[in-house]
Amino acid sequence: MNNQENQSAGTARSKLTIEALREEIDAIDTKLVDLLVQRRRVIERVAAFKKEQDMPVFHPAREEYLISARRDQATAAGLDPDYVEDLFRIMLRNSRMGQLDAVSSAGVKPEARILIVGGCGGMGRFFARWFEHSDYEVRILDRNDWEKVESLASGIDLCLLAVPIDITATVAARIAPQLPAKCILADVTSLKAEPLKAMLSSHAGPVVGLHPLFGPTTKTMDRQIVVVSPGRNHEACQWLLNQLSIWGNVLVQTSPEEHDEIMGIVQALRHFATFTFGQFLHARKVPILRTLELSSPIYRLELVMVGRLFAQDPSLYAEIIFATPERLALLKEFIQSLSQNLDLLQRVDKTEFNNRFREIAKWFGPFSEQAMRESTFLVDQLVHRF
Amino acid sequence: MNNQENQSAGTARSKLTIEALREEIDAIDTKLVDLLVQRRRVIERVAAFKKEQDMPVFHPAREEYLISARRDQATAAGLDPDYVEDLFRIMLRNSRMGQLDAVSSAGVKPEARILIVGGCGGMGRFFARWFEHSDYEVRILDRNDWEKVESLASGIDLCLLAVPIDITATVAARIAPQLPAKCILADVTSLKAEPLKAMLSSHAGPVVGLHPLFGPTTKTMDRQIVVVSPGRNHEACQWLLNQLSIWGNVLVQTSPEEHDEIMGIVQALRHFATFTFGQFLHARKVPILRTLELSSPIYRLELVMVGRLFAQDPSLYAEIIFATPERLALLKEFIQSLSQNLDLLQRVDKTEFNNRFREIAKWFGPFSEQAMRESTFLVDQLVHRF
Repeated sequence: MNNQENQSAGTARSKLTIEALREEIDAIDTKLVDLLVQRRRVIERVAAFKKEQDMPVFHPAREEYLISARRDQATAAGLDPDYVEDLFRIMLRNSRMGQLDAVSSAGVKPEARILIVGGCGGMGRFFARWFEHSDYEVRILDRNDWEKVESLASGIDLCLLAVPIDITATVAARIAPQLPAKCILADVTSLKAEPLKAMLSSHAGPVVGLHPLFGPTTKTMDRQIVVVSPGRNHEACQWLLNQLSIWGNVLVQTSPEEHDEIMGIVQALRHFATFTFGQFLHARKVPILRTLELSSPIYRLELVMVGRLFAQDPSLYAEIIFATPERLALLKEFIQSLSQNLDLLQRVDKTEFNNRFREIAKWFGPFSEQAMRESTFLVDQLVHRF
Repeated sequence: MNNQENQSAGTARSKLTIEALREEIDAIDTKLVDLLVQRRRVIERVAAFKKEQDMPVFHPAREEYLISARRDQATAAGLDPDYVEDLFRIMLRNSRMGQLDAVSSAGVKPEARILIVGGCGGMGRFFARWFEHSDYEVRILDRNDWEKVESLASGIDLCLLAVPIDITATVAARIAPQLPAKCILADVTSLKAEPLKAMLSSHAGPVVGLHPLFGPTTKTMDRQIVVVSPGRNHEACQWLLNQLSIWGNVLVQTSPEEHDEIMGIVQALRHFATFTFGQFLHARKVPILRTLELSSPIYRLELVMVGRLFAQDPSLYAEIIFATPERLALLKEFIQSLSQNLDLLQRVDKTEFNNRFREIAKWFGPFSEQAMRESTFLVDQLVHRF
């Protein structure tokens, strides 16, 4: 056998072997999916059971037990336990969502009647769908329905305002005289002080301010945050809050003042800074796609955040950015504070840069370490997924 | 049986049932991990085989076949195919990394001798470890080793500069006279024009500029980007580039000028903008942890990016930000461009904001949609993981 024959025989043999090994892998993978299907069937029985017994879907201790048992098994077999944990976290999440689908359809107060004002907008339709799914009687009042307001509002238990923030006060004043005395008046706008004031002054019954920190495209409420600012007669509002919890939301209570101040930072400032960054890229005509080919995953992550903003409706952002005079003052202060850095660059003063950096790092404290961990996890996801 | 007895009998029964169901789940999960162990064993045989036959680790067509076969199986059984794909993407990644561990230890030119200048710094030690792992002879020259330079440089095939950017040119000039004529001179700094110029003018042999877009804490090179700017005699540098590919890196070629311009945006501008945001949070004494409790996942993601910066060494950032006069000019322009927005806020001009927003969105084009998809995926990961 000459050398060439020898090589091609070697290649043929390697093809055979690699094919055989791939068949083994396919057989294992088929069994893996079979087990996932079996697992799902058992989860469905758990969900039906929990629904019957009014048990909560999320059971942190059980999840932690399960993860640590699988980690131990992995370690004993020489597998990376983090890898196995990653897989089981995804399975647990899928199982929670499957259970939520079953359990969350249970209405806390299923005989209740709900009027959604602005029910044809994004958030209005979103909540209408969820309430209907849990067997509530849902009525919609949109801008052209005011002539029917009397019949729409008759006998309702909850009036939910899902209208743009700049007309929330006006709409609250207009709908309030039509509401039964025991009816809850609630809103889902992204400010709390002014809407609560307007609702309290126009309606004498139970009042609560809500701010869901997610948009209408969210597929699940699993672990999504809803900020709650109590207004009046909080006990009477409890069934609504329980319903949100059962759907999977996490409720965080604040005063309306604290809410609005923190949202100035969390929403307005952050969106504004992202806007200005996108604006500069545009002004400089930066070649986005080429920068992505040449970019570290961190830049990709940051650019993705900028691109995300510009994929959405500008009026949503305008509403948040221009919401209050305090907010505008905050953003002006932000722009002005940047000019501090202009002379730093002018003087090419690395020492001063390092000093400022260290001072800020000290102030961030242990959060920096947490941030490092979380962002590394996400960057890994991004590198390996896209 | 009175009502209370009835209830506690119900509770006892439900405990029994839920326990039984949980045992079923645990049994399934144990089998799942057993299969993962079996899978790993087969992968190890695949890896050994590929190493023997010099076959590449990453086989996109095979991965896509595998994913689509599992998706089909999932769909047929009533499982969400995206869920099953998520799991298999993680398994494929783990399998690639396991194979890389085995295959990447193969040196392309294992008899070669490598001198790493700055070999005690972060990136220097990182590359020393990888070259040693692939059986190269690795020598280290750090700041106190210059008296031994002659013996260290004798007979080497590659001299890799891993020193801070502001001394790269000086170090290149100092080491060059010691290098054999056929030795490759390469650097791994984050600028390319000046270092390449310095290397080309001081060494007459093969020259190549490299910029690895990852830090020394990276655990794997799987799919990490290395920017390559050819200098001289590119064919003679090919074995080095092949070695990087075998380790899993993706190589992207650019001219030094394009590299430096794009890195001004990708690294300097982005880091600077993040720095200024952190600085403002500090100046305002914003309660970070409370904002996190009250934050949408997007804000969490953005805050994590800020915190990440301040968890790192300021001099790394100072080096990047203050690298060149062009870069400083770019950052000044950025600060100045922000003041455009000051009058927008002054005038509370939502219409103008919307107009600018739409213009920028149009310029971003289809990237916005991609950004929306990727960031939604990441936000989901963040919500469900932390």
